[in-house]
Amino acid sequence: MTYCLALRTHAGLVFAADTRTHAGVDYVTSYRKLHVFEPAPDRIFVLAAAGSLATTQELVSWVRRDLDAGDDRVTLNTCRYPFEAAQYLGRVSRDVQDLHAPALTASGVSGEVTLILGARIAGHAHQLFLIYTQGNFVEASEDTPYLQIGENKYGKPILDRLAGPELSLGDAARLCVASLDATIRSNLTVGLPLDLAVLPAGATRLAVESRLDERSAFYREARRIWQEGIEDIFRRLPRFPWEEASTAAVPGAPRGPA
Amino acid sequence: MTYCLALRTHAGLVFAADTRTHAGVDYVTSYRKLHVFEPAPDRIFVLAAAGSLATTQELVSWVRRDLDAGDDRVTLNTCRYPFEAAQYLGRVSRDVQDLHAPALTASGVSGEVTLILGARIAGHAHQLFLIYTQGNFVEASEDTPYLQIGENKYGKPILDRLAGPELSLGDAARLCVASLDATIRSNLTVGLPLDLAVLPAGATRLAVESRLDERSAFYREARRIWQEGIEDIFRRLPRFPWEEASTAAVPGAPRGPA
Repeated sequence: MTYCLALRTHAGLVFAADTRTHAGVDYVTSYRKLHVFEPAPDRIFVLAAAGSLATTQELVSWVRRDLDAGDDRVTLNTCRYPFEAAQYLGRVSRDVQDLHAPALTASGVSGEVTLILGARIAGHAHQLFLIYTQGNFVEASEDTPYLQIGENKYGKPILDRLAGPELSLGDAARLCVASLDATIRSNLTVGLPLDLAVLPAGATRLAVESRLDERSAFYREARRIWQEGIEDIFRRLPRFPWEEASTAAVPGAPRGPA
Repeated sequence: MTYCLALRTHAGLVFAADTRTHAGVDYVTSYRKLHVFEPAPDRIFVLAAAGSLATTQELVSWVRRDLDAGDDRVTLNTCRYPFEAAQYLGRVSRDVQDLHAPALTASGVSGEVTLILGARIAGHAHQLFLIYTQGNFVEASEDTPYLQIGENKYGKPILDRLAGPELSLGDAARLCVASLDATIRSNLTVGLPLDLAVLPAGATRLAVESRLDERSAFYREARRIWQEGIEDIFRRLPRFPWEEASTAAVPGAPRGPA
């Protein structure tokens, strides 16, 4: 499995992804799941993929071949609006899936992929899309500034608490790491290292492209602060009325409002 | 959907469940999902169910009819070991499911249920079982003292951080509420009010059976402390090295270890 997420804030786009890939539990490997396309100085596209690794790799190669072709086909370079890039990637994704569907279906295997696409073309605002398996897509909004693909449930509560369109790029990246960390702790199929990419508003090149693992000082420190902080909140929760009478008091726990 | 969970600690068993039931999104109702059986002074069984409401209700009626029968059939009263109660409930669950399977399958509807069973019979320690749809079961352990059924992913990270066999009953109940609250915020199909039940070690009757909703002082206070605490931890996370150079500083955020 996989967990990728992205946030669209007024300050720009932030992308984060784990790197664990597996076929069953006995063939676990590490693959980069963020793909960056910079086909011209006026545009950038960041793609995150969850689902079939084979479909994703073929899709990425297909997109690069289209860019090299030099004929009149639609490519990431011919798109005039960000949503046209989402349309194009949705179509390529479906074409790759259709190509292998008969053989995969016969074997009971899924070749499906779900994509997150961050797109910036000069003259347009930065946009963030979730492209479904079927090729259609939705866009992140002011109310829901984040998009998730893959193993998305473990890391959603923290996003629902803290995500907003006014977050700085640093805060958005910290929130992505917190959401990924919650997932990594609870699901073996999502694993370190984590890839981060940051595209500031108005830019057409990434400001940050970095990888975090157990050796990263930021990651170690963030994990420690988070765990100790959660333990501290837990100790400060109110007591139940029925605990007042009980002898099983928690040392140091304050009395609640009953 | 549903979310129920239970913790087995040295101090006893704690059960928690939401009450939201739905058929599609347009028929949302509230049903109690914790069922308590006290068929004799020396024993108690607490059952939580996720899945088909029809199967659950029929299963509970079936168990009560068995207790009333007065013949030589197996009932919750004839079980000598807690695991025999899990065996019995697994069989009744499968029998009810089998009864309706042909009609349900023809309609493309699932009659499946998954159960959590807390059991205490005098002379034995309190035990906690997860009974699968197929009727087999696993038991909570020292390493994994919690069991979850239904919409379990949103509330798992907090359990993985804080659950342990040494928790007091109050702490275990607080942790259940925190796990349920994370789920309620992120998934519309899990909703208030929450039911809580507490069985102290050595007891064969519940010490606490209570319901929490938006009007509960405990719940309101716990939610506030949790949200403010999370926001506070988030502000204390380290900064990324790449933020040092940036002008998009977060007011009040401390400098990280780089």
